[in-house]
Amino acid sequence: MRIERVTNTVSLKRTIDSGTEEQRKAVLEILAQVQKEGDNALRSYTEKFDGVFLNEFKVTDSDFKDAYAKLDENMVQIIKEAAENIRDYHSRQTRQSWMTMKDNGTILGQKITPLDAVGVYVPGGKAAYPSSVLMNVIPAQVAGVERIVMVSPPGKDGTIPAGVLVAADILGVKEIYKVGGAQAVGALAFGTETIQPVDKIVGPGNIFVALAKREVYGNVDIDMIAGPSEIVVLADETALPNEVAADLLSQAEHDERASSILVTPSMELAESVAVEVERQLLLLPREAIARASINDFGAIYVTNDVEEAIRVVNELAPEHLEIMTKDPMEKVGKIKHAGAIFIGRYSSEPVGDYFAGPNHVLPTNGTARFSSPLSVDDFTKKSTIISYSKQAIKDNAPKIAAFARLEGLEAHARAVEERLK
Amino acid sequence: MRIERVTNTVSLKRTIDSGTEEQRKAVLEILAQVQKEGDNALRSYTEKFDGVFLNEFKVTDSDFKDAYAKLDENMVQIIKEAAENIRDYHSRQTRQSWMTMKDNGTILGQKITPLDAVGVYVPGGKAAYPSSVLMNVIPAQVAGVERIVMVSPPGKDGTIPAGVLVAADILGVKEIYKVGGAQAVGALAFGTETIQPVDKIVGPGNIFVALAKREVYGNVDIDMIAGPSEIVVLADETALPNEVAADLLSQAEHDERASSILVTPSMELAESVAVEVERQLLLLPREAIARASINDFGAIYVTNDVEEAIRVVNELAPEHLEIMTKDPMEKVGKIKHAGAIFIGRYSSEPVGDYFAGPNHVLPTNGTARFSSPLSVDDFTKKSTIISYSKQAIKDNAPKIAAFARLEGLEAHARAVEERLK
Repeated sequence: MRIERVTNTVSLKRTIDSGTEEQRKAVLEILAQVQKEGDNALRSYTEKFDGVFLNEFKVTDSDFKDAYAKLDENMVQIIKEAAENIRDYHSRQTRQSWMTMKDNGTILGQKITPLDAVGVYVPGGKAAYPSSVLMNVIPAQVAGVERIVMVSPPGKDGTIPAGVLVAADILGVKEIYKVGGAQAVGALAFGTETIQPVDKIVGPGNIFVALAKREVYGNVDIDMIAGPSEIVVLADETALPNEVAADLLSQAEHDERASSILVTPSMELAESVAVEVERQLLLLPREAIARASINDFGAIYVTNDVEEAIRVVNELAPEHLEIMTKDPMEKVGKIKHAGAIFIGRYSSEPVGDYFAGPNHVLPTNGTARFSSPLSVDDFTKKSTIISYSKQAIKDNAPKIAAFARLEGLEAHARAVEERLK
Repeated sequence: MRIERVTNTVSLKRTIDSGTEEQRKAVLEILAQVQKEGDNALRSYTEKFDGVFLNEFKVTDSDFKDAYAKLDENMVQIIKEAAENIRDYHSRQTRQSWMTMKDNGTILGQKITPLDAVGVYVPGGKAAYPSSVLMNVIPAQVAGVERIVMVSPPGKDGTIPAGVLVAADILGVKEIYKVGGAQAVGALAFGTETIQPVDKIVGPGNIFVALAKREVYGNVDIDMIAGPSEIVVLADETALPNEVAADLLSQAEHDERASSILVTPSMELAESVAVEVERQLLLLPREAIARASINDFGAIYVTNDVEEAIRVVNELAPEHLEIMTKDPMEKVGKIKHAGAIFIGRYSSEPVGDYFAGPNHVLPTNGTARFSSPLSVDDFTKKSTIISYSKQAIKDNAPKIAAFARLEGLEAHARAVEERLK
């Protein structure tokens, strides 16, 4: 693993995939067809892209039963416990509507309302992640969203992976359609005979899904477009090289374009971590992917001191940050930009991917500078409440009218003055 | 004004302007030039589009002084009072970081951090809105944003409108540049010799500004792309036709494409409002604009009862909703989708545009189904905190490892198991 003394500013090697011209055209064509042909378009794209003809898309009771038969009972329990932890954490994020009353009788407030309907895209095939079901569905449920729909591409045998279906069933999600790709996004955004449209689409997907989400944004809301995963470990000489290396590799195995970076003032740690990464890499089943990621996007930055290391972390604005230093909690206040902060040696990043409770959908590509983890907020919206009293309009109408006239809006001025008549 | 009995579903006539191919190309070219040539590109585009050559863009002390000289002292006081109201309302939106501690020593939390730097775009020319300065800057200040930059296109005389500068000065915003259009958005997103880049760009603008914001989104965050203004008035026979008509016209005067809609179970009210609109229209300085808006996008929907009227309002999901019925506060709970809700006859919509305190940047084009008014939240971001204890990892590592293996991620499993060694 490359070791580099940091002298000036650093930044993550960004790799936003905006798709090829051909992919963008294909997505536009698919979305147009779904709007025009509805279910029939879904049928023909599913046959074309997923290699299976389905007349009905909806997951049935017997599909759920088959899924449970394929999954270890112990695993079902673990998913349930993870779901409880995630629900407990997210229920602490809920917000109340509020009002404030003034002496003159005016009431101002902010009303919080859950979205009506949300669609969750769950990738299929090799990258079937039950954890993704938990992380996208639970915040919507905690927010109070009444209708939560899942879509996921079927395998060639016409089924959705067992873990995904069991996770959905544990959460009580019953409306699931075996459809994926841009056609699923189109169905959720515009509706078909079978699938009623939703107000927001969340969940990860391949480039076609990402492009389709970007395209329907405005008609419906979408979550962020996620880039490859990133981890930055901030460590000093007290960190154990084997633990640091294992955590770096846990991101590297995701994707050749994932970034795993260590920032440390200790050259000794830097050198031992480089050795450990190489040793552990050889033992990994996904060695090829992890090695490509480490070679192309991995780095060990050595700084003069911890303060400088923190500056570098804030420049990187990573998705995941681990702090493995002396008194790690004391460093948290200095971290300005990070999606999730893992504190101390026992907070290995995968703890947050599955089980601890916080969401694993996090801002990538340096967007932690301005974006947040997926949360209950993302499934609610606010409405302002203004109730002006007779006294308030009497006192303030002349000022409001003057302001309106300063901006050249006479009808605005007259509307408030109309109340004085 | 067109009166229509509602039988089935209704929706606002949406008019999202996505620009012409030519406009999109021009914006891409401008953004590329700003990235390449920096300040020089700003100079030449300002000369080209705003008709004035400026060597220095930054607003100076003497610019502020000139602005005060042009503005009535009474108006300055009104702007100050509006700013206080807006600050008071938005300071109620602030949120605290929180943590939760478990028996086993685990700490989970959510850290709230203000954005580092925000750019506020303020339109120039005829549509110079000091209220836009207040509404975009104050939530950022309340959030704790350290650097707030304003950009606004200069007039041919090289100045920015007095009201805009005075509003900025009242708020203490000192970093203001006389640059507008797509070139200003490019400068804020990528930086030039003079203008350091920001993390988020907010504020309304023409189609070039909107397209440029859409283009730089991802590099920086942006606020919503606003559509034309909308008002829906929900009223019964207790409402006064002159007041309803005045409020409908206050939106209609904004823009030929603005929507002003009355929904009422009372045919009598419908008919008197139609008459009043015509009467008041003739008296308006912006009659032509307002008339075009009322003719093309205005409507009076007559429903069977108030319940049905509320259903229609939720279908419309308007930017502004006024409730002028008996017991209007009792209706609020049934309103699911609206940017701002104005309750009772004294809450004329312009009250919220300038003075009451809540933000006037609201979701348009039916996006109130999933979007919110601009708020302090938009200038902060969250980071998750996970501090797992030794006991927690001991108890849970096997479960986390099993979950990771179910998803085929062996290095994830090993990372947590490494802690048990």
